[in-house]
Amino acid sequence: MAIYFVRKLMMEVLIKLNKFNDHLKQSAVMIEKAIDKVLPTENKHPSILHEAMRYSAFAGGKRIRPIMVLEAAKIFGLAPEKAIFTACGIEMIHTYSLIHDDLPLMDDDDFRRGKPTCHKVFGDAIALLAGDALLTNAFTVIAQNAKVEGISAVAVLDVIDKISEAAGSLGMVGGQTVDFESCGKRIDKDTLIYIDTHKTGCLIRASLWSGARLAEAKAQDLDTIDKFGEKLGLIFQIKDDILDVTGDEKVLGKPVGSDEKNLKNTFPQVVGYENSLQIAEKLSKEAKQLLAAYKNNDFFIQLVDFLLNRNY
Amino acid sequence: MAIYFVRKLMMEVLIKLNKFNDHLKQSAVMIEKAIDKVLPTENKHPSILHEAMRYSAFAGGKRIRPIMVLEAAKIFGLAPEKAIFTACGIEMIHTYSLIHDDLPLMDDDDFRRGKPTCHKVFGDAIALLAGDALLTNAFTVIAQNAKVEGISAVAVLDVIDKISEAAGSLGMVGGQTVDFESCGKRIDKDTLIYIDTHKTGCLIRASLWSGARLAEAKAQDLDTIDKFGEKLGLIFQIKDDILDVTGDEKVLGKPVGSDEKNLKNTFPQVVGYENSLQIAEKLSKEAKQLLAAYKNNDFFIQLVDFLLNRNY
Repeated sequence: MAIYFVRKLMMEVLIKLNKFNDHLKQSAVMIEKAIDKVLPTENKHPSILHEAMRYSAFAGGKRIRPIMVLEAAKIFGLAPEKAIFTACGIEMIHTYSLIHDDLPLMDDDDFRRGKPTCHKVFGDAIALLAGDALLTNAFTVIAQNAKVEGISAVAVLDVIDKISEAAGSLGMVGGQTVDFESCGKRIDKDTLIYIDTHKTGCLIRASLWSGARLAEAKAQDLDTIDKFGEKLGLIFQIKDDILDVTGDEKVLGKPVGSDEKNLKNTFPQVVGYENSLQIAEKLSKEAKQLLAAYKNNDFFIQLVDFLLNRNY
Repeated sequence: MAIYFVRKLMMEVLIKLNKFNDHLKQSAVMIEKAIDKVLPTENKHPSILHEAMRYSAFAGGKRIRPIMVLEAAKIFGLAPEKAIFTACGIEMIHTYSLIHDDLPLMDDDDFRRGKPTCHKVFGDAIALLAGDALLTNAFTVIAQNAKVEGISAVAVLDVIDKISEAAGSLGMVGGQTVDFESCGKRIDKDTLIYIDTHKTGCLIRASLWSGARLAEAKAQDLDTIDKFGEKLGLIFQIKDDILDVTGDEKVLGKPVGSDEKNLKNTFPQVVGYENSLQIAEKLSKEAKQLLAAYKNNDFFIQLVDFLLNRNY
């Protein structure tokens, strides 16, 4: 009898997990269709530039950041499709940062997600320019969100302010800078946390905040979702670091151990492997606690578990 | 008696020219003070990034684009200081484009305006990131313009839309791409005009349009200022090409003949030297004609002559 209930419980968990995974996949498809619409087509002059932008924009990826925009809009009562321009813009900014990070003058990576990096296919100059254009065009795309019915110009301006700050010198680019400067050196935990909260964390926080802001969430709720985003960003990065030690190359699409080889500083190196796992689990509990009082928090509670337990 | 009148006329022209030059200098000082305020200070973490951003932002330059923003605001009745955030943002975008253009993987230039280029001082990676950050932070700065009394959020959103489009893949970056692809090849006049109207022209047009839009100029006036900007951008670039043949290295701050040496396509090369002069003069007349009916058009009429006759 006990076995029957355990089996039933396991089945329910599996069904829920499958539903969540299906939902992630469906959202990713919806976002990719929208990115296809907002990016200039390959026959627009200059073709080579638009080919390179599209090559990297459609080179795979979990589309986690734009999904966060849509789901944060949803939890505060806005239909996800009403935040789609902002979601696309954030994914374009994320894509540009990967293209520039991969350049020979930065990390010099030949592969990303199992495919040759942008500069390996189009050359360094076109890759640089494709990154520049994805970043710039992203703001045209986000500005379009004000044309969606029910979305205020003031909310979109706040979103542009937040995203550009999160992606700029005091945010993502700041994190990339310290990451580059720390390469090959041993760093302390504070520096590692600065890198992770800025290089990855800021854009994740801004994604959640932007969805909520477009939904006209109250100041207190924006503050809560921002704190949730801070924890989620760190969980994401710690797990990334752990996967670089224990992951499966075929699933990850990049060589395991590349951080160690590239003398990158990671959580397992700086605080130890077991400690990293414990920190990630503690953050997960705290993150879930922050959203405990919200109705329809299902997606984000499951997202915390997904980010903690993912194998890619 | 005739000599007396000619002398008097010449004196008046000289006084007017001096006043114009003084006005340009004063405006540039005002803009540099504002850029100093909107850029994070060098002691903000990461210092190296903010040093690099500031190094290039304060490496000289005529500040023509931000001056155009302020003067376009003025001609439509808005106090120039009310458009200052947009002016700073546009200069930051211009500066980023120079940093990336100078990188070894693009033009590989060691000097700009008589000073070592950003990557020669800070290394390629920090120069790349400083460019990325200037571009990204520019949108935070422009978004601040909505906090100025009397400026509407809708106008600032329109400005962000226009500037990001002008600087993106269908504008400035498109021009840089075709310029890079054409390097070392002989191109026709249409391709050269595409490069010049996009690489230089789009941001100049957007500068004028943005100032006018912040001043709530009517659709027809926005259209006129845009056409004026199109001509002004071409005059600017043709003169740049001419100066590369006939200019004075000390005044220019870069080696004369560098375009020829770098196999860059220029107006004198593609259509001939005399022809280039004639095109620039024809465009100047047309540009002045467009603004003839406007009151307080003094600045822009003189600007056309200044751009045509400048020696730096």
